[in-house]
Amino acid sequence: MSEEGKIGIIGSGLIGRSWAMLFASVGYKVYIYDIEPKQISNALEDISKQLKTLEGSGMLRGSLNAHQQCNLIQGTNSLEECVKGARHIQECVPENLELKKKVWGEADKLIVDTDCVLASSTSTFLPSRISENLQHKAQFVVAHPVNPPYYVPLVEIVPAPWTEKQVVVRTREIMEQIGQEPVSLTREIEGFALNRIQYAILNETWRLVRDNVLDVRDIDRVMSEGLGMRYAFLGPLETAHLNAEGMLNYSERYSKTMYDVSMTMGEVPLMAGPQAKVVHDQLCQMTPVDKLQERRNWRDKCLTALAKLKKEINNPEN
Amino acid sequence: MSEEGKIGIIGSGLIGRSWAMLFASVGYKVYIYDIEPKQISNALEDISKQLKTLEGSGMLRGSLNAHQQCNLIQGTNSLEECVKGARHIQECVPENLELKKKVWGEADKLIVDTDCVLASSTSTFLPSRISENLQHKAQFVVAHPVNPPYYVPLVEIVPAPWTEKQVVVRTREIMEQIGQEPVSLTREIEGFALNRIQYAILNETWRLVRDNVLDVRDIDRVMSEGLGMRYAFLGPLETAHLNAEGMLNYSERYSKTMYDVSMTMGEVPLMAGPQAKVVHDQLCQMTPVDKLQERRNWRDKCLTALAKLKKEINNPEN
Repeated sequence: MSEEGKIGIIGSGLIGRSWAMLFASVGYKVYIYDIEPKQISNALEDISKQLKTLEGSGMLRGSLNAHQQCNLIQGTNSLEECVKGARHIQECVPENLELKKKVWGEADKLIVDTDCVLASSTSTFLPSRISENLQHKAQFVVAHPVNPPYYVPLVEIVPAPWTEKQVVVRTREIMEQIGQEPVSLTREIEGFALNRIQYAILNETWRLVRDNVLDVRDIDRVMSEGLGMRYAFLGPLETAHLNAEGMLNYSERYSKTMYDVSMTMGEVPLMAGPQAKVVHDQLCQMTPVDKLQERRNWRDKCLTALAKLKKEINNPEN
Repeated sequence: MSEEGKIGIIGSGLIGRSWAMLFASVGYKVYIYDIEPKQISNALEDISKQLKTLEGSGMLRGSLNAHQQCNLIQGTNSLEECVKGARHIQECVPENLELKKKVWGEADKLIVDTDCVLASSTSTFLPSRISENLQHKAQFVVAHPVNPPYYVPLVEIVPAPWTEKQVVVRTREIMEQIGQEPVSLTREIEGFALNRIQYAILNETWRLVRDNVLDVRDIDRVMSEGLGMRYAFLGPLETAHLNAEGMLNYSERYSKTMYDVSMTMGEVPLMAGPQAKVVHDQLCQMTPVDKLQERRNWRDKCLTALAKLKKEINNPEN
């Protein structure tokens, strides 16, 4: 057992592998559980390869080398071996409520430690929905990462009504320890924070395209060549704070305009039907469906470079 | 006269200076107009300094050196000298409708060329409001830049109902020529596209803070450590396209959830009153009012580095 203690990862997909690498980067001993031995060996092989690539490009986290980090990660097809004695369990099985409830129901019976944090990576399901029938439900919390977690550090921590405050605190601490950027919601809310903001953006974007004000390529460029460049470094509220002499001044100068403009935005659109086809076809002119993976690789390359840049800006002495 | 022709810039503030540098970078002869000779000499001095700094840091645009670019820019306190014979006039006086109408009214009488584009940098006023009484109103368009334009390349091109199509086309062409990233709105709409999306984000952000779901620091980090990192490279629609097997698949999988979540967002908030003070005070814990300029300098340093990074990613051979 490493000095930092043990972490159980339930699910060996892309997100599970990222979590394993993040926890191992600061010295945790990580057990990745999956049902199929073949999936586990694939995951371990991929992790070993990823860690070596990261080491080669100078992007490996932590002070241990790739070999040492790799040695901290092992697979198991025993859920008991995965969760027993862990200080933190991170579940990342596919986004299916029944599946999540089932796996947590099984894990619940094997957990004895009342200090252990039970965390789900769900992006969609309220923690109360997943945990309502668990014996250890006071220890349950959502810790929702963003893809790819190694480069996009945000983690949304979302408690159920019965989650103990200390569980949120401990989850935030361990996320900070592994170098992620946790944010804490005080209570559960549909879509958490990230998807609510994403949907607010998509709603107005959708309406502008539907109403033929801009085409898809141009509305996307409003973000990627304009607004979004700031948001890589600053949130929307601090952006406003800087765009005037502080938020009070911003409010005095713009709150009425913002309100009036917002009142012209119209109803929430359902992003389906013939308009979805129109948007899809325009997007395919930019990125055809058979090039999606290539473009995702490009995106991840951009995110890697941005993560490196932000690190350099924030720690110029390193 | 340079081979590229003449540009008139009305207003010698920060935005006017940026426009002058952008046009000069590809060889245009630029005339900056202001009323006060002192303001003009300040502007020219600042431009000379900025161009040298850009040259020193390898960020100077175009193939001419700083000295050559500087020589292409001259000041004048004659509006006639500024606009006469220009192929493009870019107005950037302070954001005040009466002032803009006044200066355009004066320029209108001095313009003879029916090919000349009359562009306003306004972020707020509909082009119809500024141009309704102009003789040359068919040549009038909004070309709204983002601050700082040298590093954030977006320009929103917004026509009035009477703007000739060819004026929009020519404005887009010249913006592309100087290395900006223009987007074309088919018609004028309150807030154009950038501010509508910014306000949609601020509305939901404001509600989440007001309802005590997250504090200011954390909601801002949802953007800067999560969503915003993607938006530095990709717009919201392509982000969705990549997050599923194309937009049609995204629509099938998420449109109902997105609609249901969006329906819980509630009314447009007025971002004023006691809540504005609460948000302001939390922001001041991050960035006090007397540190705003320092933080803006940091932001601009980040944007400069990001602009450089994006250039390297998009043109790896350079």
